[in-house]
Amino acid sequence: MPDHAPVSIIGATGALGFGLALRLGRAGVPVVIGSRDAGRADEAARRAAEAVPEGTFSGAENAEAAAQCDVVVLTVPFRNQSETLTNLKGALREGQLLVDATVPLAAAVSGRATRLIGVWQGSAAQQAAEMAPAGVRVVSALHTVSASLLSDLGHTLDEDVLVCGDSREDRQVVVDLVERIDGLRGVHAGTLEMARIAESLTPLLISINVRHKTHAGIKITGL
Amino acid sequence: MPDHAPVSIIGATGALGFGLALRLGRAGVPVVIGSRDAGRADEAARRAAEAVPEGTFSGAENAEAAAQCDVVVLTVPFRNQSETLTNLKGALREGQLLVDATVPLAAAVSGRATRLIGVWQGSAAQQAAEMAPAGVRVVSALHTVSASLLSDLGHTLDEDVLVCGDSREDRQVVVDLVERIDGLRGVHAGTLEMARIAESLTPLLISINVRHKTHAGIKITGL
Repeated sequence: MPDHAPVSIIGATGALGFGLALRLGRAGVPVVIGSRDAGRADEAARRAAEAVPEGTFSGAENAEAAAQCDVVVLTVPFRNQSETLTNLKGALREGQLLVDATVPLAAAVSGRATRLIGVWQGSAAQQAAEMAPAGVRVVSALHTVSASLLSDLGHTLDEDVLVCGDSREDRQVVVDLVERIDGLRGVHAGTLEMARIAESLTPLLISINVRHKTHAGIKITGL
Repeated sequence: MPDHAPVSIIGATGALGFGLALRLGRAGVPVVIGSRDAGRADEAARRAAEAVPEGTFSGAENAEAAAQCDVVVLTVPFRNQSETLTNLKGALREGQLLVDATVPLAAAVSGRATRLIGVWQGSAAQQAAEMAPAGVRVVSALHTVSASLLSDLGHTLDEDVLVCGDSREDRQVVVDLVERIDGLRGVHAGTLEMARIAESLTPLLISINVRHKTHAGIKITGL
């Protein structure tokens, strides 16, 4: 039974977005699955409902999905981030919280997944903040949780999610959302400018994965 | 009883270097404590021996200390890294392993400790690799362990140390050294170019410390 306001996930037909949709759906959060193509979004919503029968899922074209919820999670590859945000300009509105999970992997320009490319604004999240309409607040999160572990509902998660944003209140919304998912803990990691470091953990974990044949995540000790 | 080859710590009168000296000394690793001033080095060696009576400590001026061991750990602030390496040019020799723990915090130029400054070579460790004499291999490590927790011998450590370096063998030497210390686990994190990411964890943890009033560290999950 849903007991939480719905959340939109833009790019939720991708691995990270879809895994997140499954986990949130299982945690009682209704999810609007966004995709560039409304048909693909509907199809993903059907697949999600099969995997999580107790969940509430619907599908919509990205801009329509973004307009439907107060919290909008952006899980597109960096290659598509700018174009996606341009397309969302008419859909996003003042008061919404945009949770950016984008990582500027050099893979976006045919480079290595263990390298980042420099984003002029400092981080993908800061680019999102610059591109979002006035009054849309941006929080950066979800860079270190493996998409495949999220999607594998048989896997017991046990790791942290770093949350960066300029307002403690906004970060707390994301911490609370993340902590709906069993085994995830949200950690206040600082202002949005710290996102460049949080984003860089993805290539670091990819490098560790290569050497240790695993899906690594992180935990902060001492909290 | 020492059962390990001695290790030199350059800048071991500083908080990180001294804490590391205490922990290694307690783990049966003889430590040569280096300082710019031989008198201060001797004094620190005396303090270390008081804190860890079973340890083996000696003091020496940095260049003398660096010449004495096959493994040399560099724990000076970034502000002094370049000058220190210049001074060590005549002391370091082919075959030695230099473990660089330097973090280019913006504090080095009166900026914030939650920010980094850009190092032309990519990271402080890569600067060290460029400055070290030919045949000295560089491994980057020890950016995320709190100096004050290291020095507090009553504190039970339980965290990871990321180790970056171009040779798996060299990284393993550092992993083994780190794992002499109870509660620390060494993790192969990739080639030396990944040090820029490992180094950036220090300002991230400082940012988390400010918000959570703690001495945070990190652990990699899934290993």
